[in-house]
Amino acid sequence: MFDFTFYNPTEIRFGRDRENELAALLKAARCERVLLVYGGGSVVRSGLLERIQRQLKEAGVAFQEHGGVRSNPVLDHAEAGVQKARSFQAQAIVPIGGGSVYDEAKAIAVGAKSSAPLWAFYTGRTIEAALPIYGVLTLAASGSEMNGNSVLTNEKTRQKYSFSSRHTYPRVSILNPALTATVPLDYTAYGAVDAIAHVLEGYLTKSAHAPLPDEMVEMIVRSVMRTSDRLMEQPDDYDARAELMWAATLALNGLTPAGIGPYSFPNHAIEHAISGLFPDVAHGAGLAVVLPAWMRWHSQKNPDPYRQLAQRLFGIDSPQGGIAALEAWFRTIKAPTRLGEIGIDAAAIAPLAQHAASLCESWGLEGYDEATLRALFEAMV
Amino acid sequence: MFDFTFYNPTEIRFGRDRENELAALLKAARCERVLLVYGGGSVVRSGLLERIQRQLKEAGVAFQEHGGVRSNPVLDHAEAGVQKARSFQAQAIVPIGGGSVYDEAKAIAVGAKSSAPLWAFYTGRTIEAALPIYGVLTLAASGSEMNGNSVLTNEKTRQKYSFSSRHTYPRVSILNPALTATVPLDYTAYGAVDAIAHVLEGYLTKSAHAPLPDEMVEMIVRSVMRTSDRLMEQPDDYDARAELMWAATLALNGLTPAGIGPYSFPNHAIEHAISGLFPDVAHGAGLAVVLPAWMRWHSQKNPDPYRQLAQRLFGIDSPQGGIAALEAWFRTIKAPTRLGEIGIDAAAIAPLAQHAASLCESWGLEGYDEATLRALFEAMV
Repeated sequence: MFDFTFYNPTEIRFGRDRENELAALLKAARCERVLLVYGGGSVVRSGLLERIQRQLKEAGVAFQEHGGVRSNPVLDHAEAGVQKARSFQAQAIVPIGGGSVYDEAKAIAVGAKSSAPLWAFYTGRTIEAALPIYGVLTLAASGSEMNGNSVLTNEKTRQKYSFSSRHTYPRVSILNPALTATVPLDYTAYGAVDAIAHVLEGYLTKSAHAPLPDEMVEMIVRSVMRTSDRLMEQPDDYDARAELMWAATLALNGLTPAGIGPYSFPNHAIEHAISGLFPDVAHGAGLAVVLPAWMRWHSQKNPDPYRQLAQRLFGIDSPQGGIAALEAWFRTIKAPTRLGEIGIDAAAIAPLAQHAASLCESWGLEGYDEATLRALFEAMV
Repeated sequence: MFDFTFYNPTEIRFGRDRENELAALLKAARCERVLLVYGGGSVVRSGLLERIQRQLKEAGVAFQEHGGVRSNPVLDHAEAGVQKARSFQAQAIVPIGGGSVYDEAKAIAVGAKSSAPLWAFYTGRTIEAALPIYGVLTLAASGSEMNGNSVLTNEKTRQKYSFSSRHTYPRVSILNPALTATVPLDYTAYGAVDAIAHVLEGYLTKSAHAPLPDEMVEMIVRSVMRTSDRLMEQPDDYDARAELMWAATLALNGLTPAGIGPYSFPNHAIEHAISGLFPDVAHGAGLAVVLPAWMRWHSQKNPDPYRQLAQRLFGIDSPQGGIAALEAWFRTIKAPTRLGEIGIDAAAIAPLAQHAASLCESWGLEGYDEATLRALFEAMV
């Protein structure tokens, strides 16, 4: 086992109606002026936003709104949020939504405490402080509710970059599985793929055998598959929503990489090129396309973890058989597995490969030159 | 899935030589006067205590010592520690040792911040504050390094009681698996049993099926068994030490019960009666005796989790077969499974049953009257 540091101070309040605890939490933390960050679609339609606003008013917590976060959140919008947080003198940031909303909330939490340009924190500047974050999660997918990561897209430069900081772990994330019942099935599927991709990156790219972390990954993948299957049949199955939500949180809260040593996120880097150039592509949909092609290529170089995955998850003895089974499962939950299905044609491969190569370079990934990436994207057609 | 709150702010620094980071951690947290809490045997003999003292001196961190913690820590000794912490004006408590040392360090951390009698916190008084705890763990067993629990024995009343508080999660626990290499094989085995007991209590006593938490428990039990087997062959196998240490930490850090709903710790209550009356019995040794007998009795009332355990861990189809396989495994690692092996004869059964009944009552456990407990202890002869 490799050395590691594990630290995750986020408190998870999980269960039915727990969003009703938000105002009391903020009051106990003496946060009486907060910025509500949200997307706009489902949290408005479902009445969740209004319920939370009423709750805050009754408790005497003042708030300002910052809605309209996009599904691949962008720098300009986050900068506008920073201005609002500053001028309102917000004492906490309250994301209400999925991973994109959380990611932008983290950006605002950092920007509000610094006079540096916000993008600097996505290009290497050290984060020294952030406003506390108290959030309500409405989508099981990104894991952002229990980590310090934030991904943002700079539309001017078409870069999708990220930071990770100890200061941006949410203080509390409220996870009410019932709030995810209104998530459409395609986004439920994208979330499942995202969670699976999070744990497989480390499982497949680490350099040495790691029995306990490997079993944890397999446990999470099995859980995500089992619960997604149930939700495709019965979208309002509370227990399946609940287990999927917790599994997706565990998938990127630092537990699975503990002890595995160096590893990398090539699928995420490659997908960021896709959703950086095509912002309408949901991150999980892009991953469903990237992952099988990348796995076929990567398994030629490093077959051992693929053989184990195939055996333990699908009872199949060949690495390629396991990849095919995972890809087939993506199709059963109606996740796309080809570029054409996410509206990207072959003409985009050259710019995608170029962009992905620069992203891989900036992430410190070796062996991902433009030619390699072009071949990878061609395998996704 | 049941509602739950998960919160665990302890930072784990895991790996070779990481105890060398202690002084810098304390300095960064502005703790320049600390109380070192330890047992006395192995941390002195191994030179670890001296190395840490030298490190603190060089960094300008002043310390006082509180050695001699017993393996079932006692109230009187903890009270003496509180006096030392107060008179020295310690800013942090530094346990160096196993679970008993951590448990007493937590007692001192609480007592130093309150004028109430220390025992009051073990009998229901709410903990409002505690000194920060920065520890170095030398034994994989109790999980105390990553939770807020403390168990203490009041020798006057022969009560072994516990508290659990948000204020007593260690800030940082340093886990260097190499430091456990000097743990004798019998204590290695007791630690393994303790970790297994921690996860099985919830697995076996919860009221409803919980697929993901169940898999997490099975993963931990498999890991503890696999690594203990290796250590019985090769006591200085670093990777096995490392995986066992992390598995034992995960066994009681709040993850496995998340979502399982109400459950109880009957084996721990019953064992506390044993080591309360016979303080020379190691907690894990007592558990190895209690667990199989309790499982045989309890599985008659609630066979489902036993059937699952038998199938998934041992590939056996009967609940009783699974229990027998676990008991047989305890014997292969030379853990005792009968009262006689821990020096307790049948004459002690009446007082044990009486004491256990009062403990079970104080823990709110139903169905554990004196007659039932007497029959249980008789099954351990």
